[in-house]
Amino acid sequence: MKQELHIIKVGGKLLEDENSKRAFLDQFSNISGLKILVHGGGSFATELSKKLGIPVKVKDGRRITDIATLNVAIMVYAGLVNKTLVAELQGNGCNSIGLTGADLDLIRAIKRPKAETDFGFVGDIVRINVEAFEKLFQNGFVPVICAISHDGEGQLLNTNADTIASKIASALSPHYKICLKFCLDKEGVQNTSEAENEVISSLCQKEFKSMQLSGAVHSGMIPKLQNGFEALENHVDEVIICGIQGLSRENHQNVTVLCK
Amino acid sequence: MKQELHIIKVGGKLLEDENSKRAFLDQFSNISGLKILVHGGGSFATELSKKLGIPVKVKDGRRITDIATLNVAIMVYAGLVNKTLVAELQGNGCNSIGLTGADLDLIRAIKRPKAETDFGFVGDIVRINVEAFEKLFQNGFVPVICAISHDGEGQLLNTNADTIASKIASALSPHYKICLKFCLDKEGVQNTSEAENEVISSLCQKEFKSMQLSGAVHSGMIPKLQNGFEALENHVDEVIICGIQGLSRENHQNVTVLCK
Repeated sequence: MKQELHIIKVGGKLLEDENSKRAFLDQFSNISGLKILVHGGGSFATELSKKLGIPVKVKDGRRITDIATLNVAIMVYAGLVNKTLVAELQGNGCNSIGLTGADLDLIRAIKRPKAETDFGFVGDIVRINVEAFEKLFQNGFVPVICAISHDGEGQLLNTNADTIASKIASALSPHYKICLKFCLDKEGVQNTSEAENEVISSLCQKEFKSMQLSGAVHSGMIPKLQNGFEALENHVDEVIICGIQGLSRENHQNVTVLCK
Repeated sequence: MKQELHIIKVGGKLLEDENSKRAFLDQFSNISGLKILVHGGGSFATELSKKLGIPVKVKDGRRITDIATLNVAIMVYAGLVNKTLVAELQGNGCNSIGLTGADLDLIRAIKRPKAETDFGFVGDIVRINVEAFEKLFQNGFVPVICAISHDGEGQLLNTNADTIASKIASALSPHYKICLKFCLDKEGVQNTSEAENEVISSLCQKEFKSMQLSGAVHSGMIPKLQNGFEALENHVDEVIICGIQGLSRENHQNVTVLCK
C-alpha cells in the first residue's frame, strides 16, 4: 500500500499576516506523516522591487522576469520567506529543510522559449527528481520548496509556485497516495452567484469551464484550478482548495474538492 | 579508519568576481569524497543595505545587526549567494544542497547576550547537529552552508562564516579526518616583513601571537586565524589558509598550514 503524502501549497496572502502565518504553520506542523510545503513570496517581492526602484514589467497581463526581478525573487522566496518558514517550523518541532529546485537538482526547468514575448528568466518545468524527494522523506526531512527552479546549467529561474506543487504531486503520484491542497485566505472556491461565503463542496472540470465563462471564477483562481485539475489528470488522488482550517482531515466539510 | 572530509570556507572577495568564483567552484567540484562549502556574503549585503538606505551601525568596530540588517543578511546569504552557488555547482555535476543553520536544525545558536553593547540578532553557536550532517553525507549530498544560524525557537541569527566553518569542523572531528581550508583571494598568510607575496608555509600559535603584536597580521585575518587555531585545539586534523590553487592536494607547497 502506498504511503500517504500531503503536498500543501500556501497562498502568499496567508504569509503576509503574522497571525495567519502562525496559524497556518501550526496546522501544517500537526499534519502527520510525509509532507511538503510549497510557497511563493506574496507581496514581499513586489515591495522589495519597489524599494529598489525596479520597475514591474508586464506584457499582456503577464510579468516579465528580467535579471533584477529574478534576483529579487531569489532573495525573497529562497531567502527571507523560505528560511523564516523553516526557522518557525523548527521552532514547532517540524524537521523542515528549505530548498529551491536547484538544490539536489529537485526541479529542472527550461527557460521559456522566446515566442512573441520574451518572459525573461521564467522556467517551464521539465523534470521532478523523484529519487531525491524519496531520499528526503526516508531521512524524515520535511521539504519546504520555494518558487525557484533551475536549468541544470547554473541558471536559476522564476517558476510559479502553484505549478511547482502540481508538478511535484504528479511526478510523485506513482509512488505515494497524494493529497494536494492549495491553502488560501478563504475556505475554498466560492460561487459568486450564491450566498456570501458559500463554498462549493465539489467542482468538476466541466463546471469549472462554465464558471470561467460566466466570470464566477476569475484572475488568480483560474491558473490555480487549472494546475489542480492537471494534477488530477496525472493520477494525484485528491486535490483540495481550502483555508487554514481545511488542512486538518476533520475539517473537510468546508472545502472545495476537485473531481474529474 | 575515519573517512576524509574537506570543509572549505570561501572568502567573500572570491565570490564578488565572476572569474574567481568560477575558478573556485571548479576547484571545489573537483575535490573528491565528502565536502562542505561554507560562505558569507562579501560586499553584496553591504551593497543591498546601501540601496535600501539601511545604515550600517557599528559599535567599537563591530557591526550591530538590527532587524533590517538581519533581513538583508538572510536575503543575500541564504538567498542570492547560496542559491547561485548551488545552481552553479549543480551545473558542474556536484550534488549540492544550500542550507542555513535553521534547516534540519544544523546550527543552533543563542542570541548574543546584551552586555555593554547589544549586537542585535547575532548568534553564538551552541550546538552543531552532527547526526544531520552524517545523514546528508550518507545520501551523497554536498552541503553549502551560509552564515545564518537559528535559536531553535523560530528566530534566525546572523553568524560569522569563519566561526561556522570552525565549529562544524570541531564538532565533526571525532567522526571524520577533517581538512579545514580557509580559501582567500591570496595564497596564504603573508609576512609583511618578508618579500612581497611571500607565503608563510607553517604558522604556530606562538608565532601568530608575536605577528599580531608586531602588526604583521591584522584586521580580518586575526579572527580567521583564531577560528583556525580553535579548530586545531579541537582535534581537527589539518587547518590551512590558501588561495584557489591550494584547494587541490597537489598544490600544497604554496599555502599556510597552521600548527599547534
